[in-house]
Amino acid sequence: MVAQPLEHLRHSLAHLLGAAVLDLYPGSKLAIGPAIEDGFYYDIDFSSAELRGQTRIGTQTYADQKMVISDSDLPKIEKKMREILKSWEVFEKIDVTPDEARKIYNGNQYKTELINELEKNKQPITLYYSGPETSIPAKKSLLQATSYKPQAGFLDLCRGGHVEDVKEIDPEGFKLTHIAGAYWRGSEKNPMLTRIYGLAFYAKEELDAHLRMLEEAKKRDHRKLGKELGLFTIAEEVGPGLPLFYPKGAILRRLVENFITEIQEKRGYMPIWIPHVTKGELYKISGHLEKYDALYPPMRLPDEADYYIKPMNCPHFMMLYKSLPHSYRELPIRYVCTTTNYRYEKSGELSGLTRVRSLTQDDCHVFATSEQIEKEVGLMLDMIEETYKVFGFNDFHVRVSIRDIKTPEKYIGDSDVWEKSEKILEGLIKNRNWKYDIGEGEAAFYGPKLDFIFKDVIGRPWQLSTVQLDMNLPQRFGLEYVDTDGTKKQPVVIHRAILGSTERFLGILIEHYAGAFPVWLAPVQVAVLSVSDKQSEAARAVEQRLKNASIRAELNNENETLGKKIRGAELQKIPYLAVIGEKEVVSDMVAVRQRGKGDLGQMSVESFIAEVTQEEKAKSL
Amino acid sequence: MVAQPLEHLRHSLAHLLGAAVLDLYPGSKLAIGPAIEDGFYYDIDFSSAELRGQTRIGTQTYADQKMVISDSDLPKIEKKMREILKSWEVFEKIDVTPDEARKIYNGNQYKTELINELEKNKQPITLYYSGPETSIPAKKSLLQATSYKPQAGFLDLCRGGHVEDVKEIDPEGFKLTHIAGAYWRGSEKNPMLTRIYGLAFYAKEELDAHLRMLEEAKKRDHRKLGKELGLFTIAEEVGPGLPLFYPKGAILRRLVENFITEIQEKRGYMPIWIPHVTKGELYKISGHLEKYDALYPPMRLPDEADYYIKPMNCPHFMMLYKSLPHSYRELPIRYVCTTTNYRYEKSGELSGLTRVRSLTQDDCHVFATSEQIEKEVGLMLDMIEETYKVFGFNDFHVRVSIRDIKTPEKYIGDSDVWEKSEKILEGLIKNRNWKYDIGEGEAAFYGPKLDFIFKDVIGRPWQLSTVQLDMNLPQRFGLEYVDTDGTKKQPVVIHRAILGSTERFLGILIEHYAGAFPVWLAPVQVAVLSVSDKQSEAARAVEQRLKNASIRAELNNENETLGKKIRGAELQKIPYLAVIGEKEVVSDMVAVRQRGKGDLGQMSVESFIAEVTQEEKAKSL
Repeated sequence: MVAQPLEHLRHSLAHLLGAAVLDLYPGSKLAIGPAIEDGFYYDIDFSSAELRGQTRIGTQTYADQKMVISDSDLPKIEKKMREILKSWEVFEKIDVTPDEARKIYNGNQYKTELINELEKNKQPITLYYSGPETSIPAKKSLLQATSYKPQAGFLDLCRGGHVEDVKEIDPEGFKLTHIAGAYWRGSEKNPMLTRIYGLAFYAKEELDAHLRMLEEAKKRDHRKLGKELGLFTIAEEVGPGLPLFYPKGAILRRLVENFITEIQEKRGYMPIWIPHVTKGELYKISGHLEKYDALYPPMRLPDEADYYIKPMNCPHFMMLYKSLPHSYRELPIRYVCTTTNYRYEKSGELSGLTRVRSLTQDDCHVFATSEQIEKEVGLMLDMIEETYKVFGFNDFHVRVSIRDIKTPEKYIGDSDVWEKSEKILEGLIKNRNWKYDIGEGEAAFYGPKLDFIFKDVIGRPWQLSTVQLDMNLPQRFGLEYVDTDGTKKQPVVIHRAILGSTERFLGILIEHYAGAFPVWLAPVQVAVLSVSDKQSEAARAVEQRLKNASIRAELNNENETLGKKIRGAELQKIPYLAVIGEKEVVSDMVAVRQRGKGDLGQMSVESFIAEVTQEEKAKSL
Repeated sequence: MVAQPLEHLRHSLAHLLGAAVLDLYPGSKLAIGPAIEDGFYYDIDFSSAELRGQTRIGTQTYADQKMVISDSDLPKIEKKMREILKSWEVFEKIDVTPDEARKIYNGNQYKTELINELEKNKQPITLYYSGPETSIPAKKSLLQATSYKPQAGFLDLCRGGHVEDVKEIDPEGFKLTHIAGAYWRGSEKNPMLTRIYGLAFYAKEELDAHLRMLEEAKKRDHRKLGKELGLFTIAEEVGPGLPLFYPKGAILRRLVENFITEIQEKRGYMPIWIPHVTKGELYKISGHLEKYDALYPPMRLPDEADYYIKPMNCPHFMMLYKSLPHSYRELPIRYVCTTTNYRYEKSGELSGLTRVRSLTQDDCHVFATSEQIEKEVGLMLDMIEETYKVFGFNDFHVRVSIRDIKTPEKYIGDSDVWEKSEKILEGLIKNRNWKYDIGEGEAAFYGPKLDFIFKDVIGRPWQLSTVQLDMNLPQRFGLEYVDTDGTKKQPVVIHRAILGSTERFLGILIEHYAGAFPVWLAPVQVAVLSVSDKQSEAARAVEQRLKNASIRAELNNENETLGKKIRGAELQKIPYLAVIGEKEVVSDMVAVRQRGKGDLGQMSVESFIAEVTQEEKAKSL
């Protein structure tokens, strides 16, 4: 990753956090403090901090005489950070030898371990001083003192990457958010450290906007809404990361998947079907057996073979192509299949629908000649654009990942095809006037690719669609077609997913819409509510008429007040409520309420059906 | 199984086969000779048969001085059977002691092994003599001879079940069909024996009809047609029993599955979605871990759990129900899901689509009160009837499997519910005037069931739909609902599949239609054929108009003669051919040929679209 200015700001703030902690809790041992997405953290060992009377703080009590801090201590630390920041003027780099560094960090086993590793890897060791310009430590003084601390300011083992000018740090542009336990270097075998998280932006306004977004995201949390709206559940007995979908969630899945099927098939893509398991032999050919980490362990069949549940579809697609002879006249062959893959992600990393172990991909593989790449990718871009417009994701940018031309040996495939297709990919994006950046050296070894990053309605970026050229699998599987001149040639494969996975996309979609799905996506489009028992039969008849018109209607004939029924339907975020009282029965009407618009008054059942159908076709927000 | 008269006939013929073999190949050792579906076989060890000059027969040569017979020897054996049959007058039972039996079968290790087992299990040992009435061996003579053979006729170790009168055997009603290798008792560790297969019916006419059916079935073989019509393939690298579907097969799958989805949902069934894997814990609760043979071996996740790929869906369905509280007002809850299961069937038993390891079930579980059983099963019968009428399976019967009331301890669940539901099941079938039989003692331990056996167009029976009551899983999973009086009660679960599995049903369907699918099912409904290059653009436009009208059209603009194009489309069994020549371009017409009807003459493209759409809606043969 190329360091970004914002990353420098965040990393600088990790230093500031470290300085504040050492000041408030002398004797604490700092471990590592990197910049992360939206902010920074520092992992700290508080176990040897001095128990000064005045630092016995927060609501927590000491356990085994160890210093324990909690979220309630964060304002104090934040305050200290702002106080220290005032005195900081420079970030100053100081080169040291491994021995010097070890001497300075005498007693801090974490920094010592890092120093030993840097030495082993023959990497330079640098310290960074931050503080008043007048107190920059002389190299000499460092060498002479064990466990050296500067007179003023703060010293940290660090490879660099800070703000150019300390003034760039807005004292109101950062905020400590929470504390979590974190094993040293992520391994359960190591001691548990205390991780303090912070957010950081250039200015207070950006921080505030981000905090508002987080607040909004919390309300929209798809795990919470998924439960409230009866969309999906995760069962302990089935396992983490393996959601089961209730009818409303299953309908949502189907609507989204069918939408993709339709936009594909009207463009000539052809469905295939593949099983979810395979002999390991297939992954030996594809190379996944050797290189793919998230593969579930094998099912070992006695006297036969090891079988695997598929973590991706490419090898199965290749086999379908390979099973028949092909001529140039058939190309491009565009195979699609929406099918579930299984990836063994660590259980600690799983979350609702957005990080799962069962992911249903809207997968596509196009087998084409290199002349067809441009047209085929263009078709894919059309579909991506059409899809995200419909779902109301209007802000996006594209990352074009290409080779690092300085290391051609890292890539396979014809160099001409590489050069040509990189140009094609960039050109196609450019011609559409889409925002994009070039990721030099970020292409896979087997081909360049496009990644689409969409912002949802509250501004969060999500990497979703992807288009990827592949010159590797056609080679590994020995794919061929007979060209115009009768010779055998190797096709190019273009991988593509529009949604990425149904599960993750639905997780994002639930939050994007805050569960208030547009009519065409709403699992229940109309709640039919009888005012009292007397209208229950008429209400049932209306429900049936709506269903006959292919409207997803749900009847509530419970013995409850109308007010309660309406509130219930509104909590379910159902787009339309059709109320049936005595008047409506007599006149064959319904009293309609629309989500977000309120009371629409009475209308005939026929007009209401026309209204809902019209709204469904609009496929708008 | 209750022995049936036809089974007696077939078993009698196995004796006759054994007698003929001993006569032609003295020294052969007979192993076992049971009746099977449509006929019988005998497993024989020819390795010690006497190599008499006149019995060196067939096209095979001797291997290691062992007697080898081949299919070409069968007419000779069949002839000998008819010759011997003439002399047979009786089947006579003779009780013997284990020692007597072992003496008689001295030197025949197979029969000796069977005798030892019968002795161990304290079962009676009986021999059957078949031959002239005058030569029935006296018990005394048997006791005196080692390797005894009767003067005339044939003696076999046998538990009985023969024709009452030898005259019942029509000498022209049987036929030896083929030879296969078969391990003694089915185990690879045992010696390979020679199995001779025969067909047998009451009369020559029935045998002939059966042979004609086999001939027809061979032509319709779905493995052959599946390849010719480009429907599916099986790849060595993926594994046996795991078919991959080409676009045409995938479309066929979808049409069949969508049909079931539609007829379910219009009746209020609700889709759900479940993942294909689960922790073993789920199957511990359901009991499958202990009892289910075809479960694939586990995927062992380090530090977490054993995961399994699901062989059935019931436990996942149970979890969805269990994850929410339920009231009597919600019942019946009707969950459906068409999803693929994986069963580890032995590779030797796999065949095309009809015996697979990946089977996609149109699964349904209804959670109901016991009062709702009748209505719910009734709804299922409606759907089964509707489905098979549409697919042209008009001849069927139902097996009603109930308890054996003499052994109530073998069944779980409320006895009243059992009695009531058995009556309901039989009553529902009776009321519809459907053919049925009662399978006493054939219910599962957890509930009675209905199995539907449909005959295809060439008369072969296929067990397809099934409806099964379950009082076990609700108990094991502790399922509950709150009843009207506020008490918690256990729902009954009704399992149901209409097609059984998509794969097997498609295999049957391909043979049923001999690949000539009706319009609504045909993967390609119209082949658009240009007469020459000059019409290729017009033909492409017609293809597009058909596609816009949701007709599955395929264009052939190849540089071939029209005759060749027509033959190609006919071999693909495409229902309609739309030919476009110069005349048609000028008049905006197409020249239409319909499969089975021939030339329909010219019609406007609009009329043609109307015709195809009309035919599609008819959903007829």
